[in-house]
Amino acid sequence: MKIGILTIGNELMNGRIADTNASLIAREANQQGWSVEAIMSVGDDFAAIKNRLNYLLSMADAVICSGGLGPTSDDITTAAIAEAFGLPLYTDENVLNYIKDIFTKFNFPWIENNAKQAMFPEGAQVLPNARGTAPGFSLSIKGKLIFVIPGVPAEAKLMVTNSVIPALRKHFPQDEQYIVKQTIKTFGLSEAAVDERMNDIDFNSFGVNIGFYPVFPENHIVLIARNENKEEAKKNLQKAQDEVSTHVQDYIFAYGEQTLEDVIAGLLTEKKLTIAVAESCTGGLITNRLTDVSGSSDYLERGLITYSNAAKISMLGVPAEVIEKHGAVSEETARLMAEGIRKLSGTDLGLSSTGIAGPTGGSPGKPVGTVYIALADAKQTICRHYSYRWDRKRNKDMFSEAALFLLKNYLQGKV
Amino acid sequence: MKIGILTIGNELMNGRIADTNASLIAREANQQGWSVEAIMSVGDDFAAIKNRLNYLLSMADAVICSGGLGPTSDDITTAAIAEAFGLPLYTDENVLNYIKDIFTKFNFPWIENNAKQAMFPEGAQVLPNARGTAPGFSLSIKGKLIFVIPGVPAEAKLMVTNSVIPALRKHFPQDEQYIVKQTIKTFGLSEAAVDERMNDIDFNSFGVNIGFYPVFPENHIVLIARNENKEEAKKNLQKAQDEVSTHVQDYIFAYGEQTLEDVIAGLLTEKKLTIAVAESCTGGLITNRLTDVSGSSDYLERGLITYSNAAKISMLGVPAEVIEKHGAVSEETARLMAEGIRKLSGTDLGLSSTGIAGPTGGSPGKPVGTVYIALADAKQTICRHYSYRWDRKRNKDMFSEAALFLLKNYLQGKV
Repeated sequence: MKIGILTIGNELMNGRIADTNASLIAREANQQGWSVEAIMSVGDDFAAIKNRLNYLLSMADAVICSGGLGPTSDDITTAAIAEAFGLPLYTDENVLNYIKDIFTKFNFPWIENNAKQAMFPEGAQVLPNARGTAPGFSLSIKGKLIFVIPGVPAEAKLMVTNSVIPALRKHFPQDEQYIVKQTIKTFGLSEAAVDERMNDIDFNSFGVNIGFYPVFPENHIVLIARNENKEEAKKNLQKAQDEVSTHVQDYIFAYGEQTLEDVIAGLLTEKKLTIAVAESCTGGLITNRLTDVSGSSDYLERGLITYSNAAKISMLGVPAEVIEKHGAVSEETARLMAEGIRKLSGTDLGLSSTGIAGPTGGSPGKPVGTVYIALADAKQTICRHYSYRWDRKRNKDMFSEAALFLLKNYLQGKV
Repeated sequence: MKIGILTIGNELMNGRIADTNASLIAREANQQGWSVEAIMSVGDDFAAIKNRLNYLLSMADAVICSGGLGPTSDDITTAAIAEAFGLPLYTDENVLNYIKDIFTKFNFPWIENNAKQAMFPEGAQVLPNARGTAPGFSLSIKGKLIFVIPGVPAEAKLMVTNSVIPALRKHFPQDEQYIVKQTIKTFGLSEAAVDERMNDIDFNSFGVNIGFYPVFPENHIVLIARNENKEEAKKNLQKAQDEVSTHVQDYIFAYGEQTLEDVIAGLLTEKKLTIAVAESCTGGLITNRLTDVSGSSDYLERGLITYSNAAKISMLGVPAEVIEKHGAVSEETARLMAEGIRKLSGTDLGLSSTGIAGPTGGSPGKPVGTVYIALADAKQTICRHYSYRWDRKRNKDMFSEAALFLLKNYLQGKV
């Protein structure tokens, strides 16, 4: 089946926001084995919406439109689509009451603008929205389907999964090809280096497609196997995955939807180890990432952001002379920070970072992008020194990734 | 002038990544007063690239293409465009040497795949890439311009600003309309509520367009004034901004490119105040955001992530009985955390958070999304209680925003 995607909103055409809904819809369609023929964006403009929709309908069996269902005056998607097909608008009283109930429940004063969200073109099927006030709808026009969902990403996501995909599967049941996917996440190699390592793997012979996706600071590899036979697709995917694992080896840190933080959570839990973190240049980012995992309080005891030298000295017991002699950004300080936080917290492990995120603070010997990461256990302290060359925010991202990657390797007995 | 945007890559069509380059290019074009006629995405496919490019050329004076210039085998943009216009490819020896030099400089082993990045269609103007190995190029075809730049966002951004926009301005000098923009950032009101507050402002009478852009958890208002006379455009923009300020008032925290963290940095510096942070449910996010500002070490002394009760008791001096009686998530604990971190750090201010980010840990009295934020100075401690209803990550975002917003209001004498 062929899918067209139309995202609607002036904020897309003037570049105010990035279009995350198009990628969401494309991903879901792709996982069904459907082909995305075209992705287009259009402003909140009657004539343009009508034109683009007709263009997409000329090449696709179904067009999924997102955006422009809000309560504000610039939201005109419903009216534009009704006009495009000469359909009158009506108010759905059930929907209107549902929206009013939400306002009552959350104690928001009722704003009359919102009544617009209960209006639909005649013949539309209303698609419920469990996360927001604006429902979507679908229309069947000359054997083709048009779906209209809100632009708010969380609402769009739920409606694509719960309403749009099931409706499409029901309406076009002939497409039954199995697709299985695997994501392999790597850190520490450039995209070209990952590619070169896999040069001699003949993915076509497994019937597998491969894609490379930089997700800063990681590089993700995605394998997709399609087959009419589900078991065959799975077998081919596994073969391809084994080949990638053999060639890329220890740069791989996760398979599938797992994040680096998830992997660490699993390892710490399995080994019944606790950890505390002492951060300087990362400013809380390492601990923040660890706490993105629900249940992290089971192994994360505390985190300290010892931004000042005074905090490093008084809380972590780093001697003032060490900072004076070697600098706050040094292997010596990093080691003492890791040992200090471990001792202070009574945890099995202590992890530390000290570096220069920039743009100021660099020197010829220690340029912006320099970082020392240390990890202490009861017997030893490991320290690594890295140099990056990004802006402040991306240096922080890199530093935190390097710290978590070192922690993962340690927990897997690889350092 | 009319612009078309074509973003290229299978990762866009299968939804693997969101298209941030289209919005970047659209934003830059918009700021020049140029109209973005269409945004399209296409996969790494010879025929599709050729087709879509011709479609866009039929409606635009210039088409800006991004993506598919990498060294890997799936990158075919240059070859596809050369074929589309019957142009042979040649290797630019200067570019090849430049790429090889980068590899030498960073001690990367030379990978032959990368030589592909020095190939261009005959007649192309090479566009230098200061951030990566892949240069872009431009082609003039029947009076229209085609630009091709890499898909890596940081590289694309630099090349749009430094090469594409200047070349377009030179080639199409007739477009001289002044555009001035202002972004007004708000927190604490829904999009509909912001809109309703401005219902009686007649922006058209100022010649100003208004847009609403939710950037979770903030709502941004963007005003755009166009005029042939620059002073007139500025005057109209100021009028519109004054109206918005009057109507939306204290929900506004910043104008222009400033972030909430930037505003706080300015206020703390101006008032010569220092701060320390004690976090629980936000896991380091508040401190991480404060340290996103270069120079934050001037006012941020330290941050503590007292995830365990033991850390709250031993480091912040919260009595065990208080936690036992009122809970770690309570107004009492939040207040004592803020007072404790202030005393411990010797700073002017202490900021704290304690709450339940979810998805587990909620109770009927204190559901997921509950948070207490406290701010202590030498004379008093302020505490606020909020309830949100998001997932774990967005609850953390909301909590940190609420904490920083309270801090900003305090620094402005509004609490």
